[in-house]
Amino acid sequence: MDDVVTTGKLADVTGYRPDYHLCPQYHHAIELIGKRWTGVILGALLYGHSRYADIRGAVPHLSDTMLGQRLRELEAEGIVTREVSARPPVRVDYRLTEKGRALEAAIGAISAWADHWVEPHAEGDS
Amino acid sequence: MDDVVTTGKLADVTGYRPDYHLCPQYHHAIELIGKRWTGVILGALLYGHSRYADIRGAVPHLSDTMLGQRLRELEAEGIVTREVSARPPVRVDYRLTEKGRALEAAIGAISAWADHWVEPHAEGDS
Repeated sequence: MDDVVTTGKLADVTGYRPDYHLCPQYHHAIELIGKRWTGVILGALLYGHSRYADIRGAVPHLSDTMLGQRLRELEAEGIVTREVSARPPVRVDYRLTEKGRALEAAIGAISAWADHWVEPHAEGDS
Repeated sequence: MDDVVTTGKLADVTGYRPDYHLCPQYHHAIELIGKRWTGVILGALLYGHSRYADIRGAVPHLSDTMLGQRLRELEAEGIVTREVSARPPVRVDYRLTEKGRALEAAIGAISAWADHWVEPHAEGDS
């Protein structure tokens, strides 16, 4: 942060806007992981759940439809892979890719912030 | 991650669900910062912008209505404070509280992940 930014004086005089570099990748990333239910699904996957039923069981109030939709979105983003067992009984596993596992630091930092700053009675937008 | 979680065998036999502790505070936090436009507004505030016009100018395509709404939400969450100048010309500043500044680590981690993993052509949900 420099003086131009904090005082805004140069902006007043010249119309110059201090440059905040709005990074489209950051914009995409934060709204991707913060999309309704996606954050808690990622939490369950990072925890180690891989079976569809276990992920669903770990997240109360999450419908099959919504879970399926979110997992497809994460698959399209290259964050999870979907594996179907070759032989019966059919079993579908979702696993984080390298890209997905790399979210651990971000998810951990959000979780640490929440532990410290969010009141216990806060609820998700569910 | 332990064996119960990775194999799910105990769950198969007993119906026991490995315990993923879905933390409501985490759920609230990730959907708060990932709400449409909120992440980029937080980015602009962390960068050092405080004037309403500078925040708006830093985020292309963000409407006055949406910016006002998101800032009110962040104020209600105790993440920003709103200060109106005591004398003319009227000037409104938004500043991060201690709680808001504490988001820097999380925002930084998301940004680092995005830099590394998100394709340059990705766009926000705008």
